[in-house]
Amino acid sequence: MAEPLRRRLPLLPLLLLAAGGLRAAERSGGSSSAMEELATEKEAEESHRQDSVSLLTFILLLTLTILTIWLFKHRRVRFLHETGLAMIYGLIVGVILRYGTPSTSGHDKPFSCSQEDRPFTTLLVNVSGKFFEYTLKGEISPGKIHNVEQNDMLRKVTFDPEVFFNILLPPIIFHAGYSLKKRHFFRNLGSILAYAFLGTAVSCFIIGNLMYGVVKLMKLVGQLSDKFYYTDCLLFGAIISATDPVTVLAIFNELHADVDLYAVLFGESVLNDAVAIVLSSSIVAYQPTGENTHAFDAAAFFKSVGVFLGIFSGSFMMGAVTGVVTALVTKFTKLHCFPLLETALFFLMSWSTFLLAEACGFTGVVAVLFCGITQAHYTYNNLSVESRSRTKQLFEVLHFLAENFIFSYMGLALFTFQKHIFSPVFIIGAFVAIFLGRAAHIYPLSFLLNLGRRHKISWSFQHMMMFSGLRGAMAFALAIRDTATYSHQMMFSTTLLIVFFTVWIVGGGTTPMLSWLNIRVGVDPDQDPPPTNDSFQVLQGDGQDSAQRNRTKQESAWLFRLWYSFDHNYLKPILTHSGPPLTTTLPSWCGLIARCLTSPQVYDNQEQLREEDSDFILNDGDLTVTYGDTTITANGSSGPHTATTNLDSRRTKSSSEEALERDLGAADHEVTSRGTRLVFPLEYNA
Amino acid sequence: MAEPLRRRLPLLPLLLLAAGGLRAAERSGGSSSAMEELATEKEAEESHRQDSVSLLTFILLLTLTILTIWLFKHRRVRFLHETGLAMIYGLIVGVILRYGTPSTSGHDKPFSCSQEDRPFTTLLVNVSGKFFEYTLKGEISPGKIHNVEQNDMLRKVTFDPEVFFNILLPPIIFHAGYSLKKRHFFRNLGSILAYAFLGTAVSCFIIGNLMYGVVKLMKLVGQLSDKFYYTDCLLFGAIISATDPVTVLAIFNELHADVDLYAVLFGESVLNDAVAIVLSSSIVAYQPTGENTHAFDAAAFFKSVGVFLGIFSGSFMMGAVTGVVTALVTKFTKLHCFPLLETALFFLMSWSTFLLAEACGFTGVVAVLFCGITQAHYTYNNLSVESRSRTKQLFEVLHFLAENFIFSYMGLALFTFQKHIFSPVFIIGAFVAIFLGRAAHIYPLSFLLNLGRRHKISWSFQHMMMFSGLRGAMAFALAIRDTATYSHQMMFSTTLLIVFFTVWIVGGGTTPMLSWLNIRVGVDPDQDPPPTNDSFQVLQGDGQDSAQRNRTKQESAWLFRLWYSFDHNYLKPILTHSGPPLTTTLPSWCGLIARCLTSPQVYDNQEQLREEDSDFILNDGDLTVTYGDTTITANGSSGPHTATTNLDSRRTKSSSEEALERDLGAADHEVTSRGTRLVFPLEYNA
Repeated sequence: MAEPLRRRLPLLPLLLLAAGGLRAAERSGGSSSAMEELATEKEAEESHRQDSVSLLTFILLLTLTILTIWLFKHRRVRFLHETGLAMIYGLIVGVILRYGTPSTSGHDKPFSCSQEDRPFTTLLVNVSGKFFEYTLKGEISPGKIHNVEQNDMLRKVTFDPEVFFNILLPPIIFHAGYSLKKRHFFRNLGSILAYAFLGTAVSCFIIGNLMYGVVKLMKLVGQLSDKFYYTDCLLFGAIISATDPVTVLAIFNELHADVDLYAVLFGESVLNDAVAIVLSSSIVAYQPTGENTHAFDAAAFFKSVGVFLGIFSGSFMMGAVTGVVTALVTKFTKLHCFPLLETALFFLMSWSTFLLAEACGFTGVVAVLFCGITQAHYTYNNLSVESRSRTKQLFEVLHFLAENFIFSYMGLALFTFQKHIFSPVFIIGAFVAIFLGRAAHIYPLSFLLNLGRRHKISWSFQHMMMFSGLRGAMAFALAIRDTATYSHQMMFSTTLLIVFFTVWIVGGGTTPMLSWLNIRVGVDPDQDPPPTNDSFQVLQGDGQDSAQRNRTKQESAWLFRLWYSFDHNYLKPILTHSGPPLTTTLPSWCGLIARCLTSPQVYDNQEQLREEDSDFILNDGDLTVTYGDTTITANGSSGPHTATTNLDSRRTKSSSEEALERDLGAADHEVTSRGTRLVFPLEYNA
Repeated sequence: MAEPLRRRLPLLPLLLLAAGGLRAAERSGGSSSAMEELATEKEAEESHRQDSVSLLTFILLLTLTILTIWLFKHRRVRFLHETGLAMIYGLIVGVILRYGTPSTSGHDKPFSCSQEDRPFTTLLVNVSGKFFEYTLKGEISPGKIHNVEQNDMLRKVTFDPEVFFNILLPPIIFHAGYSLKKRHFFRNLGSILAYAFLGTAVSCFIIGNLMYGVVKLMKLVGQLSDKFYYTDCLLFGAIISATDPVTVLAIFNELHADVDLYAVLFGESVLNDAVAIVLSSSIVAYQPTGENTHAFDAAAFFKSVGVFLGIFSGSFMMGAVTGVVTALVTKFTKLHCFPLLETALFFLMSWSTFLLAEACGFTGVVAVLFCGITQAHYTYNNLSVESRSRTKQLFEVLHFLAENFIFSYMGLALFTFQKHIFSPVFIIGAFVAIFLGRAAHIYPLSFLLNLGRRHKISWSFQHMMMFSGLRGAMAFALAIRDTATYSHQMMFSTTLLIVFFTVWIVGGGTTPMLSWLNIRVGVDPDQDPPPTNDSFQVLQGDGQDSAQRNRTKQESAWLFRLWYSFDHNYLKPILTHSGPPLTTTLPSWCGLIARCLTSPQVYDNQEQLREEDSDFILNDGDLTVTYGDTTITANGSSGPHTATTNLDSRRTKSSSEEALERDLGAADHEVTSRGTRLVFPLEYNA
């Protein structure tokens, strides 16, 4: 009865997510009444309805997932994480769609008509006197033409791969940056950077080379039916090097496992996502000149390295700049009186980072990550209390929905994706390669890092990191981006299986693994680790004061000390309401600027404001750099993590250091609650 | 330097909003290296970049709007509302885009190729051996073919009209339903329904007929260059009858103007949006048989009426059902321990309403409205405190962004829309018609309603309602949906001007108007109006007890009393944790079901739980229906709004009534804070 009305309502709600099955209904004038137009309208209407149904399927899937997650949490089931659950439900729906729906649709006959030159983006087609506008969707390889004519429902639930990259990943990545536990992140910054950059590169090249061997082997035994280049293998290495220990971290969070291990794992996974994206882009950009297009070419290689550095630093700058602009705006306007405006501004500025980076040719997802970190480091301090919780909660919800959507789509894709190529040799080879790649990433790097670290990374932590190298949303999004060729299809299918395996089997084994490795759980993240039995301290129980001092110096290298003092003395006072007044830190000839930039609040309660300045962990001696006016009796045994600290020696520390240390605890409490992915009932510490 | 990498990143971020300028880049395999492919890739890359830039334009526009809003609020400027501001900025950017950018783009040559039958939704085109897939975008009237080839930037900022209807309106409408001030809404339900249904229909027909006269006149003087049917005029009537007093309500909120006037205006505008949507759909569905397709046809008319009733009730049911399902789920699971899950579920269920209604052929926007009301009435009570604020804030932000986006787009559209037809006669006629239509809507209906109302709608209130008949987002979205024909283009241009005029001139005049009409401001919404000088009471100062009682009976007609007792005795206990236990309200033979459905909390603290049951305003005597066990000494002068109440007579009331009345105040406080659109500093009551 209500049918005729729907004809003017095409599928726009779906634009939000369902780009794959997008077929716009035509909007025709009201004056003609030909039969074929009615038929087309009916068809468009039907298509719109199907789009709604397919999106509804996903929403119901997510709803079901949420309810089961609740049940699992309620019953304290820990062997399966919510993302694993989402995948299972996706799988079930995929099977139903695959085998339970009719397999052909009658009215999607492709129409061929030859053009001479290159394809236009817009096409006008004359159909019995009426003109219709068409837009270019993409190239189809000649062999696949008949695949266009496939199961309607399967097509509907197949999204454009770029949806994942440009709509679903940004909130996930932004949330990761925004919820970094800054204290522990910065304390372990050196290790995190080493793992993320060096480690990911090592892992990528090892996996790439191993897979090239596997591919050679497959060619030898005749298992390969199409081309598979060395660059494809490297691309696979980059794709699969993006770890996503969401399952492990959720369990860590729930069990209150060691915060440093958490920080290293989380920091590494966040940054290595960015590295993997840029790495895969660089590998794609690797185009040697001449005919032999897939051999090694030094010029092309260096160009790729240049591209890597260019994109990475460009995206980093974009993210940092929009973060800084937001901080300045929120500092110098009194926007915090209107939390709604503040939240909206925060959201828009963070989104504009993505668009700005894309518009400039950088990678939006990476920019969004650094924007999130900058926002958390500066802007967050300027926000009103209400906006802090609003922004936190807004991105938490977006992150939760996007993540579960991706994982349930993964489950679905195993059955609904039409071009799977499962090669047992390749899959087994890939599993071995990621294991070896992870091992070659963690153990040697940890050894090197331990040479310089005061708090050694213990063997059990190394094993846990090795174990936690799960693959997830990022690997999937990178793999699904390009499934045009044989090699990419095989890589996609393999990635999907690896994600399934790691999330279900490895993720489920986290709790047993933790207890097997004797990793401390039930840690209150606000507290520093107890002075004895700290797993980070195992290797240095006999450390002397001087040796310790020396290591500390190494760890807090000049670069970080420089950055910290710069951040504390200039950036924080300029961008937030905290830190020392600029009038004291800037040279006297910039007096006017300093007065303009310094927040009036700083003068009022300078002592109290230090509380907000708590993101950087202080190592001994750092304070002599930052507070030139107070002399610190650095007795070598101070600092938050030393094994020999006793209350009396703490008492002798200078007041400024003590105050800052106290502040760290206070602020970390706040940061911790922000980092919590899901709100667990706190009573059950294992 | 980073350019080649961008080729695999088409415009998906834009799918979110920018459907108009959508031109997907092709994803080609890695093996070919022909020059034209590179050219196409460059082009796609360029297109992606332009898309990013155009979306960035909107985001910067919104950012600028937010900052200026803050400045205005900060300086307490009230002559221009934020939406008016958004339009001004949109206008400025529109002018820049229109006159500041080069006007043609070289590479969008349309290509024509003839097909025999009807258009396919998917098209395969063979370009020098390679196949490209195209999707149908829509029909283009032959005269407009050359318009396809137009300013690139203008095209980029032109969204698919359906974006407004299917992406931007739902959060606005849902928020309206979710933030209804239930107490005052239900107290004035009869009047609101009358204004919304009868009033909108009257207004639509009066405007439609007046405009038909104008059109006839234009034809007479040769001002009309194409067809303009009677149904087009009626459609214009429906479009322009959707009032949107957002400006007025914001000012009311800020000045704490009379809550009943606020409730009536807000309720009317919310419901009349729904009525206008369905009305316009029904008018479009009005297709008389035979050759003379635009004359009156009784069969088609009744079909349209049927369609109206069908769509309206269907959408209502959809919204109510998903709301009820959400309430049941949140009641019977202990999801409130995990606010994130709860919020996500709430969001998904509310979104699924839209999709469900669309999939069933009803109107998603209308369904979403009723879903919002149901969620606020039932589900909200089951949510955890954190989820209440989360959901509230989430939809508040979405609403704010969507609304300001629409208004800034309106400003932009005045210059960037390519098919404006401004006819002075039509525009002047339209202004006169909406004035007369609004007058014919408000005054006669108010007169009729006052016959039955206990609290009369005073003249000043009627004038204020007349004055507040602004047009806004809904009228725009309805008008832009179909701009294919001459008549629709003229209607769109006229609607745009009407929206500008009403938001700027009429909206800006709200504060002077309020003081000119002597409407009470600075009312604490938690308090009932003071017993004297209440503008609602002016006409009945001499009302006797018996007469008053009589009027009350009329107002709280049997239908509402029946509904209230049903809601309070059955629905609330089933769907929420409040209300009397079902074991006492259901007949004894349903004992088992009653025990299962009743929340255990109800038994524990039945007395305290009544506090939550506070959404329905009680009229005298109602309690005798709902609480059969307590006899109430209805002394005729009780009830929250009587002029002659004194403290002693109140004391004599039965405890249950008194408790409920107390509760109403307590709960309304909560509801009020939910209804606040923006958080204003509360210190300045005019």
